[in-house]
Amino acid sequence: MQAHLVSQPDETAEETRRENYRDAMAKLGAAVHIVTTAGAAGRAGFAATAVCSVSDNPPTLLVCLNKGSSAYWPVKGNGTLCVNVLSSEHRELSGLFGGKTPVEERFAGATWTELPSGSLALDGALASFDCEITSVADGHSHDILICRVLETQVNEGGKSLIYLNRGYHTV
Amino acid sequence: MQAHLVSQPDETAEETRRENYRDAMAKLGAAVHIVTTAGAAGRAGFAATAVCSVSDNPPTLLVCLNKGSSAYWPVKGNGTLCVNVLSSEHRELSGLFGGKTPVEERFAGATWTELPSGSLALDGALASFDCEITSVADGHSHDILICRVLETQVNEGGKSLIYLNRGYHTV
Repeated sequence: MQAHLVSQPDETAEETRRENYRDAMAKLGAAVHIVTTAGAAGRAGFAATAVCSVSDNPPTLLVCLNKGSSAYWPVKGNGTLCVNVLSSEHRELSGLFGGKTPVEERFAGATWTELPSGSLALDGALASFDCEITSVADGHSHDILICRVLETQVNEGGKSLIYLNRGYHTV
Repeated sequence: MQAHLVSQPDETAEETRRENYRDAMAKLGAAVHIVTTAGAAGRAGFAATAVCSVSDNPPTLLVCLNKGSSAYWPVKGNGTLCVNVLSSEHRELSGLFGGKTPVEERFAGATWTELPSGSLALDGALASFDCEITSVADGHSHDILICRVLETQVNEGGKSLIYLNRGYHTV
């Protein structure tokens, strides 16, 4: 009887592949958002660049949410969220919602208005999208939340906050 | 017997809702990409802003593809694609891949290198991601293509092409 050769995944090669992927993704500029949720499952919010438009008929967007995020269970439990597109005035706020800051301190850093879904719109956001989650696709470490847009708000005149090459830019 | 009142969807209200959605999405800045595919189902390419990172373990991104796009069946048939992140030098090329230009004229507008999957990487792109499609989520008018990243390429030094407020910007 011959021993089976079991090929072990080469962890160093995998880590190099992931590093190369992150370096390439640093070249992909993206708007910065604060995504909020509120309701029976609790209030939470997180900063995200992985947001994009899916369809305008019906108005649909998607948000990628890390399964390890403190916001994960509140968002999934409430089934609703608000995507706020940050302006260049919101750099510090983005840091607050991207770190380990407790939830109440995060929200104390700005002024918010409650939307029909119960989620919170950021005063001064370039745009806010009040959403309900209609389906979820698996993205390994992340869930891809596919959301019906219930209502939109727009503020004219502000500059956009873009994250690119691991830093913030004003456009 | 009483007649049933059938509520008709209010088409004007729906169209207003879609317009409001598009106006709000115009505030969301995004990198511009040319997505290519090549193989037994044909060669095709399209310009897209709806691309984002999903996970780095394993490296995974998503692309939203209009079901009415000329690239739809080639991409679905080949099951592979390359996402090329455009630099500020690629404004005209973006227009070429966003319009009704025949496929051979589109590709004649730049220089390309064939990747392991058979897809074409754009010379001078800030980054290129060679991908295979691993699953598809429904996004109404669009498919959400969830893709495993096989290989990445990066070019240092170029400026980024960002689409925001219905126009191009250099960052």
